[in-house]
Amino acid sequence: MRTRITELFQIKYPVVQAGMIWCSGWELASAVSNAGGLGLIGSGSMYPDILREQIRKCKAATDKPFGVNVPLFYPDIDKHMAIIAEEEVKIVFTSAGNPLTWTKWLQEKGITVVQVISNLKFAKKSEDAGVDALVAEGFEAGGHNGREETTTMCLIPMIRDAVQLPLIAAGGIGDGRAMAAAFCLGAEGVQVGSRFAATLESSAHQNFKNAIVDAGDGATELTLKELTPVRLIKNHFYQEVQDAYKHHADRDALSELLGHGRSKKGMFLGDLEEGELEIGQVSALIHDIKPAAEILHEIVDGFEKTMQKLRQM
Amino acid sequence: MRTRITELFQIKYPVVQAGMIWCSGWELASAVSNAGGLGLIGSGSMYPDILREQIRKCKAATDKPFGVNVPLFYPDIDKHMAIIAEEEVKIVFTSAGNPLTWTKWLQEKGITVVQVISNLKFAKKSEDAGVDALVAEGFEAGGHNGREETTTMCLIPMIRDAVQLPLIAAGGIGDGRAMAAAFCLGAEGVQVGSRFAATLESSAHQNFKNAIVDAGDGATELTLKELTPVRLIKNHFYQEVQDAYKHHADRDALSELLGHGRSKKGMFLGDLEEGELEIGQVSALIHDIKPAAEILHEIVDGFEKTMQKLRQM
Repeated sequence: MRTRITELFQIKYPVVQAGMIWCSGWELASAVSNAGGLGLIGSGSMYPDILREQIRKCKAATDKPFGVNVPLFYPDIDKHMAIIAEEEVKIVFTSAGNPLTWTKWLQEKGITVVQVISNLKFAKKSEDAGVDALVAEGFEAGGHNGREETTTMCLIPMIRDAVQLPLIAAGGIGDGRAMAAAFCLGAEGVQVGSRFAATLESSAHQNFKNAIVDAGDGATELTLKELTPVRLIKNHFYQEVQDAYKHHADRDALSELLGHGRSKKGMFLGDLEEGELEIGQVSALIHDIKPAAEILHEIVDGFEKTMQKLRQM
Repeated sequence: MRTRITELFQIKYPVVQAGMIWCSGWELASAVSNAGGLGLIGSGSMYPDILREQIRKCKAATDKPFGVNVPLFYPDIDKHMAIIAEEEVKIVFTSAGNPLTWTKWLQEKGITVVQVISNLKFAKKSEDAGVDALVAEGFEAGGHNGREETTTMCLIPMIRDAVQLPLIAAGGIGDGRAMAAAFCLGAEGVQVGSRFAATLESSAHQNFKNAIVDAGDGATELTLKELTPVRLIKNHFYQEVQDAYKHHADRDALSELLGHGRSKKGMFLGDLEEGELEIGQVSALIHDIKPAAEILHEIVDGFEKTMQKLRQM
């Protein structure tokens, strides 16, 4: 299976494990990379010294390519980027910010830059900024997301028609059927988040992993659009947000209600009531917690089986 | 191309043209059926005598199978169903209501019943009610939609895993790439709405057809969730709804603002400012107005090309 994405990253399978806060440290990233995908360390929940430690441990655990995801709104972004350069990380996924700010700086150091976008405007902006590839992430994805609410089914062909860059699809992709669907739509690789959050190597709290398995149809919603839109499990904290809306809470009130450390509380410390539980709609299709390598192989096998089935139609 | 859907309806291609208010009268339905798909008359915007006339004209215009879509919340539903039986319509798509109410009554008259659902609960309920097939419609679809906001990418495999019925995918499907993607996800047919709304045979106003062509990324939103959630183009009326939300409008105030005849005003009479313009996210991928037969053949050709491309990967 060779695509521009396997070529760009020098990996066996065009499957990227999304860099997720509180879930994707070196254990998950190295497990995915060792199995032939591209593992990403999610730096958004890491202090600079933690990030450095995670990169070093990942390098020790795999000789395969891996990368770091950097949300560009992160306050310590300068320190994060400096560490990434010092530790000679080869691949960086940037998200939630302007692709013009860091792309050239990173590329001058020989780093491959991939920008995560959720709309057409930022896809074009990223191409103009000279990034090496795009992740186009649909409305169904977990965590922070775009205001256009464009789903993977509509977003991928729209981006494919508009830009020439190698294209990775994200949002709603947890098995080989969805991977095959994404390729039909024009993707050359997929980024998988939620499914890898529920793995043995995920650094999320066991309670959160169990909550992903328990989540069914309609268990999540994209909310807090007045701040940064985020897809959450509808738990007690989510209900508090809905109550605040009913009482006509403004941006400041919502911001105060969210407070600090909500996602850590939920996803890392396992408080399923008061924590923020960021996961995608595809959680409704996740029924177990397994080793990451097994998940990767299931996705690739499922892709092949889906292709065979369609050939016989 | 043979699937359980082509068998069930005795049609050449597993492509259904959605029954849409103000767009799909006998001209569109017969054009699609004559071209080898399944055309549907959208009865939701028709008085009973109009529906009878439309069915008779459709029968005169095609000897191929066609059907009628009936939203079950329609006030004159008894009259509609009586006319459907009297005029010997063979296929009925029911939507927006309880599948238990009419399924047996229709089937006893030899009518094939397909239920449109947007969540897992109603899929199972429809299977229990004994319908002959399902349309599973994702969040990106135009018009009225489910509260779970589950996208096509997540909904189709979820329904595929849970029910045994022949399955038609809807929402975000306007070309052969999306049709192929839907088949990867487990569908055996597709229902296409928005793309057929922008055809020569669509009975929509030319202004509305032009608005579909003009719609880009982020041009629509699922709103009015306090009433019945509906995906609309963000025009002046939509802005009025948003302003009402800012002023904490309740259900009654929203209902009064919506008033009566908004969709007719927009989609049939062409008032792009004050009318309700129901269309799917896939409108961003629609760039022209063409004959329906040409659209159908483009979808089928695009499906074949997508399959060939993946085989060569």
